[in-house]
Amino acid sequence: MLSFVGLGLYDERSITVRGRERIDAADRAFLELYTSRLAGVSVAELRSVYDTPIELRDREGVERDPEPILSAAAADHVAFLTAGDTMTSTTHADLRLRAADRGIDTEVILGTTAQTAASALTGLQNYRFGKATTLPFPTIVYLDIDASRDRLLAADRAAELLTDQVTGPAVVVARAGGDDPVVRAGSLSELAAASFGPPPHLLVVPGELHQMEREALAELAGLSEA
Amino acid sequence: MLSFVGLGLYDERSITVRGRERIDAADRAFLELYTSRLAGVSVAELRSVYDTPIELRDREGVERDPEPILSAAAADHVAFLTAGDTMTSTTHADLRLRAADRGIDTEVILGTTAQTAASALTGLQNYRFGKATTLPFPTIVYLDIDASRDRLLAADRAAELLTDQVTGPAVVVARAGGDDPVVRAGSLSELAAASFGPPPHLLVVPGELHQMEREALAELAGLSEA
Repeated sequence: MLSFVGLGLYDERSITVRGRERIDAADRAFLELYTSRLAGVSVAELRSVYDTPIELRDREGVERDPEPILSAAAADHVAFLTAGDTMTSTTHADLRLRAADRGIDTEVILGTTAQTAASALTGLQNYRFGKATTLPFPTIVYLDIDASRDRLLAADRAAELLTDQVTGPAVVVARAGGDDPVVRAGSLSELAAASFGPPPHLLVVPGELHQMEREALAELAGLSEA
Repeated sequence: MLSFVGLGLYDERSITVRGRERIDAADRAFLELYTSRLAGVSVAELRSVYDTPIELRDREGVERDPEPILSAAAADHVAFLTAGDTMTSTTHADLRLRAADRGIDTEVILGTTAQTAASALTGLQNYRFGKATTLPFPTIVYLDIDASRDRLLAADRAAELLTDQVTGPAVVVARAGGDDPVVRAGSLSELAAASFGPPPHLLVVPGELHQMEREALAELAGLSEA
């Protein structure tokens, strides 16, 4: 049995109660932090929450050599852990399909994710969002993480990269899922000149705003009325 | 202080640990079930989880007469509870803005939601989803709930309504967030002829499938290869 468990967005308290139960019930737990990362908790702290030992796996150990995980799941109940949700953006559909191919039961325990945090924290209506998009470093990585170089793309730098290509306001969400997230709206040049504290950051480009969205950004994110 | 807390997608274990802490810490808690509903737990069972008393509010008691909630939040720490996420689909941005207007601090505790469950459970890639859409009863309601008549639109009926308008396969997700969700793919006429057990149901119309998505639907949702 292979349980995909989303740890949610920020720290050890971002997981669902159901998810916590599944980890405690598992014989073994594997954790990957290369597609997303928990900004508010260290791996050591995370391990202290659970009786089940948590084994860290890098990208190679999941995608190129999934055999140890699959063998473990064929014999025992294995929990596979990812920050956020394990099937949204940080997609592990491939591992799930490999398990299914071998007749191993799988389940997905949902987690909170950046996909919905963007609307939840900004006041922008989720119905109006289009497709998600990715803003790369010079290589193709997510906005918020480049695991190979162990750095996170900050929202002010992302805003700077987009200044010439986007008009109208954008919104930065920093530390979504934490106790004290920062949400700030402004022009890209304003955001490029600001700093937002520790990662992770999200950048939302809302396009033309509805009046109620504009009010939300003014009230909740300091958008100037001009 | 007004904390918007998402209860997540299915039952009393779908909430995050952080959310559970915020409810326990609150002086009062208000719950609305008219925008979404927890299929796997009754209100009485939910109440038994928390020391903080949970007061049920209907749409009128939230949207037309929010004064009691706002007054309580001005004086005490109030938790406002919604199934799913409180700002995704079941949006309470208006209540949050009213609180902010009065100088009441607000926070949002994220919840798991149908918005991401659709991709997490089907194997369809969330990057390829377009805007969310709503399939109404004769009146404008969400696919999964019509609070005024206390009924839930079932996926087989929804598939039937769409049979003439959509070609290609669709996917039904029933009881997302629960321990035993049903995920089944097929033509709309196949889905219309099936039944999926108790609500809530989601209907996903994926459009043209990538090969890996087709494999995912075949493996995980029983899509016929034809």
